[in-house]
Amino acid sequence: MTTYKNKQVLLVSRPKGIPTADNFQIVESALPVVAKGQVLVRNIYLSVEPAMKGWVSAIGNYAEPVALNSVMRSFATGMVIDSLHPSFAPGEFVTGLFGWQDYALVEVDAIDRKIAAHSLPISTSLGVLGLNGMTAYFGLLDIGQPLSGDTVVVSTAAGAVGSCVGQIAKLKNCHTIGITGSQEKVDLCKQLYQYDQAINYNDEQFKNELAHACPKGIDIYFDNTGGVISDAVLQLLNIGGRVVICGTSSIGNWEERPVGPRQERQILVTRARIQGFLIFDYKERYPEALAALTEWVSSGLIKYREEILCGIEEAPCSISSLYRGENLGKRLIQIYKIQA
Amino acid sequence: MTTYKNKQVLLVSRPKGIPTADNFQIVESALPVVAKGQVLVRNIYLSVEPAMKGWVSAIGNYAEPVALNSVMRSFATGMVIDSLHPSFAPGEFVTGLFGWQDYALVEVDAIDRKIAAHSLPISTSLGVLGLNGMTAYFGLLDIGQPLSGDTVVVSTAAGAVGSCVGQIAKLKNCHTIGITGSQEKVDLCKQLYQYDQAINYNDEQFKNELAHACPKGIDIYFDNTGGVISDAVLQLLNIGGRVVICGTSSIGNWEERPVGPRQERQILVTRARIQGFLIFDYKERYPEALAALTEWVSSGLIKYREEILCGIEEAPCSISSLYRGENLGKRLIQIYKIQA
Repeated sequence: MTTYKNKQVLLVSRPKGIPTADNFQIVESALPVVAKGQVLVRNIYLSVEPAMKGWVSAIGNYAEPVALNSVMRSFATGMVIDSLHPSFAPGEFVTGLFGWQDYALVEVDAIDRKIAAHSLPISTSLGVLGLNGMTAYFGLLDIGQPLSGDTVVVSTAAGAVGSCVGQIAKLKNCHTIGITGSQEKVDLCKQLYQYDQAINYNDEQFKNELAHACPKGIDIYFDNTGGVISDAVLQLLNIGGRVVICGTSSIGNWEERPVGPRQERQILVTRARIQGFLIFDYKERYPEALAALTEWVSSGLIKYREEILCGIEEAPCSISSLYRGENLGKRLIQIYKIQA
Repeated sequence: MTTYKNKQVLLVSRPKGIPTADNFQIVESALPVVAKGQVLVRNIYLSVEPAMKGWVSAIGNYAEPVALNSVMRSFATGMVIDSLHPSFAPGEFVTGLFGWQDYALVEVDAIDRKIAAHSLPISTSLGVLGLNGMTAYFGLLDIGQPLSGDTVVVSTAAGAVGSCVGQIAKLKNCHTIGITGSQEKVDLCKQLYQYDQAINYNDEQFKNELAHACPKGIDIYFDNTGGVISDAVLQLLNIGGRVVICGTSSIGNWEERPVGPRQERQILVTRARIQGFLIFDYKERYPEALAALTEWVSSGLIKYREEILCGIEEAPCSISSLYRGENLGKRLIQIYKIQA
């Protein structure tokens, strides 16, 4: 009989800014034993996301910092292999906060949901049919409140959230402009994600290109970056404009507070509404978003892309390369395969 | 028979920043003749307000810049002395955009409203029962959306708008903290305007005093200043906090764009909503606000203070001293008196 081991990625030190491989260590521990009320999940896909930079920072934000020498916090999708809880049975697929590890022994409140049987791959539960897609859905529709004909600008336009925002905005008859960081992603924005225009923020003429792409000004800015990209966008905001702040990925380090142009006057003159957004505030309404997204993705109205790394050894360096913009699509790590 | 002359204050040059007496010139012209559809108003009170800095700037904001060598734009309250419009008759009191001048010949769309007969002085139509009071009313209630028990912080707390915001917040069972610029105004905030706490932003310990006054954090910030005062307040914002940007009086000059700490991260983490506010967007709902304010002021629930300068010669230097914070209450200029 094989003795199963549980490979785990521990956070062993806190980064200054973006976490790198040095901040993590992979260890092996014994397979945990299920107690009453608990569920044992065999992780299949681990998620990698920009928010992890915040989670490992000593400065708490919306969640407690990940404790040193504990398993790195992560969303993951896997299969129940043992359960002492009546609602879950072996063989069921679930997604939740299972951490960067092979096996997760969890209380049921760590499980977000069972993954419904449909024709889409289970990996989508961590991206377009997961928090990324739902972030796009509620952030754009609830906070941004798009009207037909609005000009909608999206930063990290080719990313897991941004690409979905652009496509939902298009479904709502908006004029969509994507801002991204390479020619390859500009092409992806136009060809796969159906943006009306896409712009590389590294271009020298970025500001002019943006103004040119938005001749009627900007009604909604879905912001995943903050920083100088946002400064340029806010200059073009229309009266009554809405800004959804969903991420600040362009700022590597908030500990030494960065400065930028003051926005008070621009907000006043445009009577803009700038609002921070966190998907976890919408838990009660997840089913609504998932139903809509599943239909759109199944029918081909929303396209998505995943970039799947293989093996848990990829995890420690996966965040820093995400911040370098190396990924094209939702970044996942596959650590197990079900043989059909 | 006396030949009446019309004294007028013209804008003759554009200031860099805050307008001073040099930017204006007082001239005398002939009394205009009423044509069909027009109304001639004898101004009694002229208004002086921070927004005038924006109106005379070459950079348009929500209104076109005042043209050089034309009468300075201003709200005023006066009496109809001649009318060739069926809705207005001599002897009626009206308020509107009549300019800094003795007599205003206006089309009726310049008239905001007739002043209803009630026991309050007509000067209130330019302050607590005018745009200032209505700004407080809609800005706080519509944008700020106070809940019972919320902590509400107001900058320029003793000003015409701020003092009213603080008192309406108190009526809504909020904990109110006023930020102002002198000990005299701190006392006024506590004694007349019923703030639970008031703080002088010139104190060395301002940040600590603010934190101490808001042990449960800040739910609503009604911002009339922007700048470093806002920076301090935003650090204490609670999750779901609301910021009403109503003015930016702490920044003398926006032409060389001032910088400050970036707020993106703070907005994201708190899921705050920051929104610009302009009273003119609420024209349709003025009667609602006026009804409520009239009742509150008449019954003594809302106190107000006016500081009335005498003579149109006071007008040219009245804006700069307003920006130096020399006024205690709504600043008006009385240029005429009705003998009862």
